[in-house]
Amino acid sequence: MKGDRTRQSILDRAVDLASLEGLQGLTIGRLADDLGMSKSGLFAHFGSKEELQLATLEAAGERFLNEVLRPALKQPRGYPRLVAICDAWIDYIGRDVFPGGCFFAAASFEFDGRPGLVRDAIAANMHDWIGALEKAITIAKEEGHLRDDVDPSQLAFELNSLFFGANFDCQLRGERKALDRARRAVHERLAIASQPLRPARRRTA
Amino acid sequence: MKGDRTRQSILDRAVDLASLEGLQGLTIGRLADDLGMSKSGLFAHFGSKEELQLATLEAAGERFLNEVLRPALKQPRGYPRLVAICDAWIDYIGRDVFPGGCFFAAASFEFDGRPGLVRDAIAANMHDWIGALEKAITIAKEEGHLRDDVDPSQLAFELNSLFFGANFDCQLRGERKALDRARRAVHERLAIASQPLRPARRRTA
Repeated sequence: MKGDRTRQSILDRAVDLASLEGLQGLTIGRLADDLGMSKSGLFAHFGSKEELQLATLEAAGERFLNEVLRPALKQPRGYPRLVAICDAWIDYIGRDVFPGGCFFAAASFEFDGRPGLVRDAIAANMHDWIGALEKAITIAKEEGHLRDDVDPSQLAFELNSLFFGANFDCQLRGERKALDRARRAVHERLAIASQPLRPARRRTA
Repeated sequence: MKGDRTRQSILDRAVDLASLEGLQGLTIGRLADDLGMSKSGLFAHFGSKEELQLATLEAAGERFLNEVLRPALKQPRGYPRLVAICDAWIDYIGRDVFPGGCFFAAASFEFDGRPGLVRDAIAANMHDWIGALEKAITIAKEEGHLRDDVDPSQLAFELNSLFFGANFDCQLRGERKALDRARRAVHERLAIASQPLRPARRRTA
């Protein structure tokens, strides 16, 4: 039976464990214990704690891409695709794709003060994610769906902040309304960025 | 010499250590090692790891109040006080009040999946913080500085999300522009929520 477990099914469990208990707590011993496997059996797959953490990050990234980004990227270029990415992110927290909320938000905060390969891999994942948001915004500008004066880095920062804020409110405060608040804020923010002809509602501070 | 160390100076160091390495990694042994004290000496102050973590949280909360919230609360009621709280938060990240960024953002993500007294204390701190934001927004509405249709919970959620997003970008991605982005987003968001007392102007680039 144990011999039938594939590396992928081991990693699926590793992702769930790390999501609940933190990536730093994911040791070969802890995972072996959880799976009912021998440590030596797991060492055959992953030579070190760091290698296990990196493989777990990669598996988490694949799950995120499959659940969030790839389906949204099938939407038409421009505003529809950008909205689809945002909605997919918010839905992803509501669907508990990872049992402990957003894997990468948690990993980012856990490892930002721990230099090393694991931190670098998390930063690379987040860099790709923010880059995907910026690219979707840039395409929406090119399509004429967002105003010319929209700064992709600024807007991507704001959208990602709302995602992180929603994740925090859900996970720590158990505030399920957070998803509705994030959805409302995201749609209002995108509407402001997309309606050049509407009279400006803001005044200078 | 060691006998002169007060509980407060021990806790100051505990806060800095926990900020850099995580609150979960803050053990009596780790702190004793760092301070060059005996474990038994520290046990005289804190009877357990959990007690140390709770005392460290309390000290971190006091530092946050002194550095961020209390000075801002001295500003006049309404919009000025609300803006002061937001600016104080953004400045606080830029000033490295905690060496690992916002103590409570990090602790929230670290402990959201770990039930217990420490998680409850973090949640209580965050509840108070969000509550302080909501109260400042409510007062600004009462003073006629924000529109009547502003939902304090919604706006507090959005502001706190921008704070968390800025902290993430600074800490993991080393993106110091994040503070400018957060400041810009916060001020634009507050401008939208404020009463259009004078003719609206087009947004400047």
